Amino acid sequence: MSEQAIQQDETLRGWLKTVIGKPSFEWFIIGLIFLNAIILGLETDKDLHASYGSLFSAIDRLILSVFVCELLAKFYVNKWQMFKDPWSVFDLFVVGVALVPATGHLSVLRSLRILRILRLISAVPSMRRVVTGLLNAIPGMGSVAALLLLILYVSSVMATQLFGGAFPEQFGTLSASIFTLVQIMTMEGWADISGPVMDKFSYAWIFFLVYMLVTSFAVLNLFIGIIVDAMQTEALVPLQAHEEEIVDDQTREIMTELAAIKDEIRELKKS
Amino acid sequence: MSEQAIQQDETLRGWLKTVIGKPSFEWFIIGLIFLNAIILGLETDKDLHASYGSLFSAIDRLILSVFVCELLAKFYVNKWQMFKDPWSVFDLFVVGVALVPATGHLSVLRSLRILRILRLISAVPSMRRVVTGLLNAIPGMGSVAALLLLILYVSSVMATQLFGGAFPEQFGTLSASIFTLVQIMTMEGWADISGPVMDKFSYAWIFFLVYMLVTSFAVLNLFIGIIVDAMQTEALVPLQAHEEEIVDDQTREIMTELAAIKDEIRELKKS
Amino acid sequence: MSEQAIQQDETLRGWLKTVIGKPSFEWFIIGLIFLNAIILGLETDKDLHASYGSLFSAIDRLILSVFVCELLAKFYVNKWQMFKDPWSVFDLFVVGVALVPATGHLSVLRSLRILRILRLISAVPSMRRVVTGLLNAIPGMGSVAALLLLILYVSSVMATQLFGGAFPEQFGTLSASIFTLVQIMTMEGWADISGPVMDKFSYAWIFFLVYMLVTSFAVLNLFIGIIVDAMQTEALVPLQAHEEEIVDDQTREIMTELAAIKDEIRELKKS
Amino acid sequence: MSEQAIQQDETLRGWLKTVIGKPSFEWFIIGLIFLNAIILGLETDKDLHASYGSLFSAIDRLILSVFVCELLAKFYVNKWQMFKDPWSVFDLFVVGVALVPATGHLSVLRSLRILRILRLISAVPSMRRVVTGLLNAIPGMGSVAALLLLILYVSSVMATQLFGGAFPEQFGTLSASIFTLVQIMTMEGWADISGPVMDKFSYAWIFFLVYMLVTSFAVLNLFIGIIVDAMQTEALVPLQAHEEEIVDDQTREIMTELAAIKDEIRELKKS
Repeated sequence: MSEQAIQQDETLRGWLKTVIGKPSFEWFIIGLIFLNAIILGLETDKDLHASYGSLFSAIDRLILSVFVCELLAKFYVNKWQMFKDPWSVFDLFVVGVALVPATGHLSVLRSLRILRILRLISAVPSMRRVVTGLLNAIPGMGSVAALLLLILYVSSVMATQLFGGAFPEQFGTLSASIFTLVQIMTMEGWADISGPVMDKFSYAWIFFLVYMLVTSFAVLNLFIGIIVDAMQTEALVPLQAHEEEIVDDQTREIMTELAAIKDEIRELKKS
Repeated sequence: MSEQAIQQDETLRGWLKTVIGKPSFEWFIIGLIFLNAIILGLETDKDLHASYGSLFSAIDRLILSVFVCELLAKFYVNKWQMFKDPWSVFDLFVVGVALVPATGHLSVLRSLRILRILRLISAVPSMRRVVTGLLNAIPGMGSVAALLLLILYVSSVMATQLFGGAFPEQFGTLSASIFTLVQIMTMEGWADISGPVMDKFSYAWIFFLVYMLVTSFAVLNLFIGIIVDAMQTEALVPLQAHEEEIVDDQTREIMTELAAIKDEIRELKKS
Repeated sequence: MSEQAIQQDETLRGWLKTVIGKPSFEWFIIGLIFLNAIILGLETDKDLHASYGSLFSAIDRLILSVFVCELLAKFYVNKWQMFKDPWSVFDLFVVGVALVPATGHLSVLRSLRILRILRLISAVPSMRRVVTGLLNAIPGMGSVAALLLLILYVSSVMATQLFGGAFPEQFGTLSASIFTLVQIMTMEGWADISGPVMDKFSYAWIFFLVYMLVTSFAVLNLFIGIIVDAMQTEALVPLQAHEEEIVDDQTREIMTELAAIKDEIRELKKS
Repeated sequence: MSEQAIQQDETLRGWLKTVIGKPSFEWFIIGLIFLNAIILGLETDKDLHASYGSLFSAIDRLILSVFVCELLAKFYVNKWQMFKDPWSVFDLFVVGVALVPATGHLSVLRSLRILRILRLISAVPSMRRVVTGLLNAIPGMGSVAALLLLILYVSSVMATQLFGGAFPEQFGTLSASIFTLVQIMTMEGWADISGPVMDKFSYAWIFFLVYMLVTSFAVLNLFIGIIVDAMQTEALVPLQAHEEEIVDDQTREIMTELAAIKDEIRELKKS
């Protein structure tokens, strides 16, 4: 590349960086996301789809191309640094999904276009903070969640072997048992499921009682873990920091006074 | 207005202010609200309505006119200042609703008369405090609530496109999908809804699993946010204030002693 | 009463007091309560009732008479002081219920005999503490509970007027509406109730949405109030007391040292 | 035993101890548990069971024998000390279950083989910590749980006597009543159960209202107890320990300074 070309390139990059960084540009993108959300929502209406389908399609494609341009511009500015920011990767993914050709039976892929609306999360700082907060809470749940999955798996295998023959619909296969036991875990219709099983197998109440007690207790502790963590991070740690500061201040005050006394005594000594 | 008229006006205003401010008057209004609640409750009974309908109507109108007079008196006393107090505006609204002529198909407006009973909230200080507390907790929920709405909208559009054709009753229109997904969010009958969908679409379990995990987790964090906030405001901040006071007191005690020592040393120097 | 009789009376009272206060006597009563619980449980079995009904009846009456004697003895010892202890009044009530003649249609009264088993609460100290704790938490819930009741009443009157005509089973009378709205408040089958109503009345979703949001939010705050209170009483207040003690100790240590320094300076002065 | 045999024995024990303690051996066992979980899961599929049943059986028996050998080795190393570690007893139990001959109708015992997968809990330290944490929370729940059981029993006996005749399916026997009332306690379908009963017995709403209020309140307090406990142990106690340290440090600093001042005064005295 000639020196001139490099300079032009730099100028363009600087100009793009300024444009992308402008609040008005961010608001423009947020506005487009909202417009896109409305368009995709209206498109679900059959009548509107029949009358204005092609218009909706055109606007959708227009907005999509703006998004693609925006991401290209961001890539041009930040180069591969862009992939270090998880939110940019997220944007790339939800926009990129719409570019995958959705032919034939891949109507599922078409419906994923709406995921683009989730760009609102990365575009609005307060939403980004909330989601970051939520994601940070996940690692702390790891062990209890693994325990729950283990209990669910063990119980499902057991339920399939014990009740699968008599209740094929609920416990016939491992996946059916998992579905049924997740349902019982959420306390949704547990009595309608376990009632007939208990009528048939006299010992079944032990299985259901143990399963329900253990899983509710584990779920409860999952919640408590999150509550205690949130309390720690958001309330107790700042509180403590503030208190330490106060104690520090008071001690410093006393120490200054003590130093003054020391000086007086030294003066006394000299005299 | 002549000077005499102004003076008369002032006298009336002062007298009204005294009357309205009296606890006995407040109790009288509270009593009327209770009476009104009973009347409006009894009126829902068809037999009683047939026998005593006109009596109930008369008492209701009488109570309404007392409320109107009270509000007029308050306006006469406080003038436009009244509109600065949100509780007065609330009172004006719930009383005013009954004055809108409810003719023809506007039976909905008639049924809004019962809202007048909510004046109990503005009339009883402890209720007012509770509602103020509840309202204060709302802003802190903003971001998570917005996130939940976003997830609900995106999931509803997606569900309408994916399952709308096969399950028109649950997912046929966007509003039907929103209703169904709110229902699933509350864990009410989720298995009866998602079961058939999963049987038809083998990949549907991913949709429902992700949706239920994400929304329950968001709802949980909404709750935790409120709990942490309440703990902060009601327990930790007063605790800290009290502790700071103690540390302050102790430091002051030490500082006084130090000052005394300093004085002694100075005396020593002089001698 | 002759002096001798008084003295005999005093001796008897002293002896009874010793007997009642003995741990072995308390264990005997707890054992009887358990035995009574088993008897009353077995009696619900039709076959056992047919075969051993009279035996069960005899044992039940025997245990009842022991309880009556115990309460008479307690009254003899403590006189009217007994009625100042709420647990004794509770005992009197649950035992007394069985003494009311249950003839004719009063089978309800007969079934209240089982309440006697609740004496276990007053007999076991740790149970008594738990129940006292639960009761202490109630006053703090007062305002929010009153608000909930108010919202429930207002919503029920409104629902009766709006939907009573079209859905007589759910909203036909005020009591039916209250039952239905309590059901919706617990999120139990809310979709099955509100779905048809929304199909008929297009504006009904506003009513249900507002009702569900407001009541869940109020219930949540009821819970949070109890949590914050419990945290206060059981965790934060003792924590603070302990911390104050430490700060006090440290300050005292410093003050002692300061007093010693003062003494030294004074000695210095004298010399 | 000859001296040589003892020495050989010691050598073997030392070698086994080293092998068992190796991380690679622990990972090998964890891998076997996972493999076993997959095998037992696949076995629930009828087609796979028909085709590869004997292969699955063989692998299962092989893994079982490895587990048995591992436990024998552990016993050889630790002798009876092994029974002091609850996790080893747990391992012994879940592995031992598979060794009980499961003939005839004892298919229940066969299905207990899957419990072996729970060894994952004792094999993975973080799982062990979670389960230990959960178990530690149980004693604190004792009193409230006992109260709940008492209320459930009393209510069930009462419901059987009152409603058993009219609603044999729900309240016909004591065990049916307990099942129904547990169901109502979880708020699952409570309205469908209590509705008809209230239609038949006009006073039944008192029973259900009191029962539901009391049990939800008790369950809520059970949860709160666990939350407060967890907050105590995991957040407040460490917080306090840290704060005490800080106050201690500050006081020590002040005390050092005071000692220095004292020394200076003493020097002054001497001079």
